[in-house]
Amino acid sequence: MDERTAKLLARRERLLGAGAPLFYDEPLHIVRGEGVWLYAADGRRYLDCYNNVPHVGHCHPDVVAALARQAATLNVHTRYLHETILDYSERLLATFAPHLDSVLYACTGSEANDQALRIARHATGHRGIVCTNLTYHGNTTAVDAVSPLFYGRVTPHPDVRTMPWPDAYRAPQGLAGAALCDHYLACLDAAIAELAASDAGFAGLIVCSIFANEGLPDVPAGFMAAAAARVRAAGGLVIADEVQAGFGRTGTMWGHDLVGFSPDIVTLGKPMGNGHPISAVVTRRELLDAFRHDVMYFNTFGGNPVSCAVASAVLDVMEREDLLANARAQGDYVRDGFRRLAERHAVIGDVRGAGLWIGVELVRDRATREPATEETRRIVNRMKERGILMNRIGEFDNVLKMRPPMPFAREHAELLLATVDEVLGAG
Amino acid sequence: MDERTAKLLARRERLLGAGAPLFYDEPLHIVRGEGVWLYAADGRRYLDCYNNVPHVGHCHPDVVAALARQAATLNVHTRYLHETILDYSERLLATFAPHLDSVLYACTGSEANDQALRIARHATGHRGIVCTNLTYHGNTTAVDAVSPLFYGRVTPHPDVRTMPWPDAYRAPQGLAGAALCDHYLACLDAAIAELAASDAGFAGLIVCSIFANEGLPDVPAGFMAAAAARVRAAGGLVIADEVQAGFGRTGTMWGHDLVGFSPDIVTLGKPMGNGHPISAVVTRRELLDAFRHDVMYFNTFGGNPVSCAVASAVLDVMEREDLLANARAQGDYVRDGFRRLAERHAVIGDVRGAGLWIGVELVRDRATREPATEETRRIVNRMKERGILMNRIGEFDNVLKMRPPMPFAREHAELLLATVDEVLGAG
Repeated sequence: MDERTAKLLARRERLLGAGAPLFYDEPLHIVRGEGVWLYAADGRRYLDCYNNVPHVGHCHPDVVAALARQAATLNVHTRYLHETILDYSERLLATFAPHLDSVLYACTGSEANDQALRIARHATGHRGIVCTNLTYHGNTTAVDAVSPLFYGRVTPHPDVRTMPWPDAYRAPQGLAGAALCDHYLACLDAAIAELAASDAGFAGLIVCSIFANEGLPDVPAGFMAAAAARVRAAGGLVIADEVQAGFGRTGTMWGHDLVGFSPDIVTLGKPMGNGHPISAVVTRRELLDAFRHDVMYFNTFGGNPVSCAVASAVLDVMEREDLLANARAQGDYVRDGFRRLAERHAVIGDVRGAGLWIGVELVRDRATREPATEETRRIVNRMKERGILMNRIGEFDNVLKMRPPMPFAREHAELLLATVDEVLGAG
Repeated sequence: MDERTAKLLARRERLLGAGAPLFYDEPLHIVRGEGVWLYAADGRRYLDCYNNVPHVGHCHPDVVAALARQAATLNVHTRYLHETILDYSERLLATFAPHLDSVLYACTGSEANDQALRIARHATGHRGIVCTNLTYHGNTTAVDAVSPLFYGRVTPHPDVRTMPWPDAYRAPQGLAGAALCDHYLACLDAAIAELAASDAGFAGLIVCSIFANEGLPDVPAGFMAAAAARVRAAGGLVIADEVQAGFGRTGTMWGHDLVGFSPDIVTLGKPMGNGHPISAVVTRRELLDAFRHDVMYFNTFGGNPVSCAVASAVLDVMEREDLLANARAQGDYVRDGFRRLAERHAVIGDVRGAGLWIGVELVRDRATREPATEETRRIVNRMKERGILMNRIGEFDNVLKMRPPMPFAREHAELLLATVDEVLGAG
């Protein structure tokens, strides 16, 4: 590590607390971003295959212009009338099924998920929530209780029960298809029954619609539609966390459309403002009306004119640059490329994902599927050394995680694949 | 109400839910802001005596320039190294007592208070929190539980006990001075004892350092220092919510310096980014280190280079325009003016506050101190009709609430006082 980096690290530990999270064995000092590229302090550039927040590209000039224009005109809370929030809301809601017709704004995905839990608990009169055993929905006290990812498979909160995430690659007892689906539905039923029998009662299910943190599994066909039906039959609500999946990342506007289920409440965040802090809860009007009737929800910054102008500019760029079609085309190209690489590199166990959400599971043995955890860590660091940024996820931290900015082009996909080929070849 | 406003209101109800909060009997449609002025769609301008979030003035060109410049350069999360966050952190922490030497970033005051509760609970191993019976700290599930303002005087959460806010104007049993102090300290002791005897245990006290939502009382001298000592003697931590009080609003950089107590944890928000969503928790390093050791706290947008560049520009403007001195001078001038008006207008019962946080309590009878609640509502609306924006707070909603942008000048103070004189004279 060079002296400058070491000094920065020491200052950081002192000011932000020891253990404030950082990427890579030797952290990167990034100073500039443009499109799919990040530039370090030493002048080196990196192809960004990791960051989904700069959705339409780092520092997209149209988004920056909208931000600067509105910030110079008006930035104030939503207790005065303004049109930007209404225009944006109409445009946003038009991308959902008709029953999802109302929106509440906040600033972060954690805040959106916290309000989603409040709405579900308010509507049902119960507190009990089911989540998967390897999920992360955010960092508030209430959302942390439904985020067992960093706490092993057990969540200690009495109002929460976990169920296993649907894993088709390491399916229990070698189950597949409808039998696998039934297995996970039985797990859901058991979690619901436990809550219903408890003091908490059953309020609903919260899931990332594509199970991103769980490692982006191939969700068994029909699983989520059946799960949503079971939740509703038990009097609960279905919360789809679209903070990672949403806004066309998967080549479909919303992850729940891709996976095939209809939520009662949807939460949005990360890419919504291309890095500007805006998030939202989209839900049925009767749920939001009832919540607002009893609860004074107000968010000082949520839905302000600047945030809504920025979020609107993001939709403009997505449309103008046809980024959903690009996500499908380049994502498929990258997955095909990894499948070709798998013919030469036995460490590639499974290639998954949709659009520009790409997961590649690395294993030591394709038959036993022993996770190549340490190899994955090394590969992520070596890819960085060769100028390409990615990270890893999953139960065994052995899934390469790739979510590049959406203007990721064929030439970037080719560079990614060629570099992976080299790094895997180097062992 | 004109047709255009009525149409906006109908769209708003449809899109954002019935009852999304709005100001004034006839809501304002604001389209532009500059300095201490807001401009409505009909071209009318309003003197803004309400908004504390645009701290250095609506759309301050230096803040907008810093925002636009950094947004065009780099906007990325904090898991790469960058210097802006460290430079800003050093500058921010230098404004606190030496023991408050570490900072954790988030986006909203609610998020900051939620993390403050997590840190206090983590450090003590207990869950029980004491708050006042008329406070509001934000909107997450956990923070809502310590925000009884909108739920009457009782909070239902088993981990929370309330104590009365220190009211020197309607002091119980006519107490004053040390006796009044002792009365409220006994209430605090009782709340702590209840929690300590419960399953929750005692984790700490959270207070707005100037009791802003409670109506900005004249806090009995020595009360908060003695309260903090009692909290610590019981093994708890003191959380000062500076989301409203902080950044020089009171003419002193932090409300706890003004009121005279030393917190373990401080939360910041609203004015920090002049409307850009940035917030923070400032605390002792050993508390933050221990929290980070056990808890994976990461906030996607918190402390990003854009937020820190904006927050730094806010400090620049505060220094260059000497806004703390201005807050003291203009705030004192306004309070003196209200005291002169009280000689002619019997409805003015009490004039309170510090710097540009001004509270004026209206009563029907100075002897009985019967709250002039309905009159206050009418006056706030009439002031708006005459082009001046303020609002009301307090147990009886009878305290005029004024917190103008900090570049509020003598001419604005004179316009405010002359207009109040007219409106009160009109009855």
